[in-house]
Amino acid sequence: MHVHGGDVYNKSGVIDFSANINLAGIPKGISDAAKAGVDFSIHYPDVKCRKLKEAISDYIKIPTDYIRCGNGAADIIFSMVFAKKPKKALMPAPSFYEYEQALRAVDCEIEYYILKEENEFSFDDGFIDALDDTFDIVFICNPNNPTGRLSSPEYLRKLLKKCSENNVLMVLDECFNDLIEEPEKYTIEKDILDNKNLLVLKAFTKIFAIPGLRLGFGLTSNKELLEKMAEVSQPWSVSVPAQMAGVAALKETEYVKKSKALIKEEKEFLLSEFDRLGIKVFGHGANYIFFKSIDNLSEMTKERDILIRDCSNYVGLKNGYYRIAVRGHEDNVKLISLFEELLSK
Amino acid sequence: MHVHGGDVYNKSGVIDFSANINLAGIPKGISDAAKAGVDFSIHYPDVKCRKLKEAISDYIKIPTDYIRCGNGAADIIFSMVFAKKPKKALMPAPSFYEYEQALRAVDCEIEYYILKEENEFSFDDGFIDALDDTFDIVFICNPNNPTGRLSSPEYLRKLLKKCSENNVLMVLDECFNDLIEEPEKYTIEKDILDNKNLLVLKAFTKIFAIPGLRLGFGLTSNKELLEKMAEVSQPWSVSVPAQMAGVAALKETEYVKKSKALIKEEKEFLLSEFDRLGIKVFGHGANYIFFKSIDNLSEMTKERDILIRDCSNYVGLKNGYYRIAVRGHEDNVKLISLFEELLSK
Repeated sequence: MHVHGGDVYNKSGVIDFSANINLAGIPKGISDAAKAGVDFSIHYPDVKCRKLKEAISDYIKIPTDYIRCGNGAADIIFSMVFAKKPKKALMPAPSFYEYEQALRAVDCEIEYYILKEENEFSFDDGFIDALDDTFDIVFICNPNNPTGRLSSPEYLRKLLKKCSENNVLMVLDECFNDLIEEPEKYTIEKDILDNKNLLVLKAFTKIFAIPGLRLGFGLTSNKELLEKMAEVSQPWSVSVPAQMAGVAALKETEYVKKSKALIKEEKEFLLSEFDRLGIKVFGHGANYIFFKSIDNLSEMTKERDILIRDCSNYVGLKNGYYRIAVRGHEDNVKLISLFEELLSK
Repeated sequence: MHVHGGDVYNKSGVIDFSANINLAGIPKGISDAAKAGVDFSIHYPDVKCRKLKEAISDYIKIPTDYIRCGNGAADIIFSMVFAKKPKKALMPAPSFYEYEQALRAVDCEIEYYILKEENEFSFDDGFIDALDDTFDIVFICNPNNPTGRLSSPEYLRKLLKKCSENNVLMVLDECFNDLIEEPEKYTIEKDILDNKNLLVLKAFTKIFAIPGLRLGFGLTSNKELLEKMAEVSQPWSVSVPAQMAGVAALKETEYVKKSKALIKEEKEFLLSEFDRLGIKVFGHGANYIFFKSIDNLSEMTKERDILIRDCSNYVGLKNGYYRIAVRGHEDNVKLISLFEELLSK
């Protein structure tokens, strides 16, 4: 069963803190390009996503041959799993649900590694030690979702080394990397260039605030895997508006800079207010905050038209864990004010 | 390897007869809705496609529970195949390549039934006779692609009866049904209501000229199959612009009527010109024409910036078979004039 965040389609006028989207909204350059893409949609999408791959390649300095674009990063996850058909996976918990959903679609055995609350839900050496050659695949998300905890490049490379030694595919989800304050200090995307055991997931969704357009990509130098992924996927999965929006997005450097400054400011506001209210925060590596509070908090905020992400249905969590996105100041003030009211009861 | 039609991305200024898209272009009501969808794409798509399913349900009078929307009809084909994981398939040849591509992704054994040229590539009783309980699935496209040949509802129901008796899933591709002159005389979509062995594929792509937006749907009362399809698919496969375009499209009854009259007129022009030029035509049930001519015709037209679909790479065909879409009058005149020149050499 699919477990997702707040449902803005169910009721209008809600404030949605449950989806981790850049609070700055869609830049005009991107929406203009997507709309031009609508007019061009009388044509099938370019099955090779050539212009988009070239733009990504220019931007991240990785050859086009190592890039696969998808209908959101989720499309890359599913096509990779259908291509590889892993038999046994090591899965951190809590983490993004769709990894597990994709693995179940190919009847993959899943071994969970439960991240410990006493360790602030950080990845530790136990996770690396748990890996051996009986596994085909391991997933890790940085910063992790929903916990917001960051792993260091040193840690990730230690995991990658263990994967290489045991011929395990390491799927590193960097979809929120662009929303870290200093992304370049955390990404290990260039490691794909000399390690075929690494697949890095990237999304346009979060940083450019376009989850509805569906655009993500994967990076790997494992050509065999890339070929197999193409074989098990429809050729037209990335729409024309998404491809054109993606090309435009990579020019929005000023937007990225400004919106990150705004997120930083608002995140600091929220964190200081959480501190004032005595709310325990575990992680906030990107544009979202993971915290612990009273049971039923999300139900109570929902009644007041504010959606927050109840994380109780994640493996490794229980009632009382929540995730919120950092939104604009007015919304954040409303959230804090509501929390203050509800928690004082 | 993916085998597709003309590549408008490779060279600009070409006239593309290789993609079977409604010559009338995208109606303004649809592009306006898709553009509003771009602005709403700051939200994830509705994972349940509720408004779209309700609009489809109102339009075709089939309950929403029996509708699955996808990122193009191709998405429905792949998710159905990943859900069912058939072991053995009966496949007509020539027919749409993506059926076969999807089946190969799950290592399904494929038995081809070659449609005979002396029979104008029509479906015959031999196809039905070839089915037995060793098969899990059979595909049929009406009108068939690329041949343009129509099968009667009586024939389709005879095939469906055989499928029911042998517990075979019949996948009936009606993606071009809306472009038949009298669609209601050919569709058997309502048969899903009392037969769980039938899945009907439908697309918005062709009739509404929006292949770049990616929107199709499947119809079946086989709830177990529908549930399994949801399990093996990412939850957000249908973008916000596509969902909103789809809702708007179903209001475009006047556009459908007018564009079909236009297609009829232009198809008659092309057919009479083909007749004058002595070109053998096999089928033209929808908005495309399948014919036989000299080898290398498509290479010669390509040099003159006109793309036609070379069908030599379809199983069951060889050099000299082509498909063209019916386009606007000016383009059609250019095509005929070029054919006349090339064939007189």
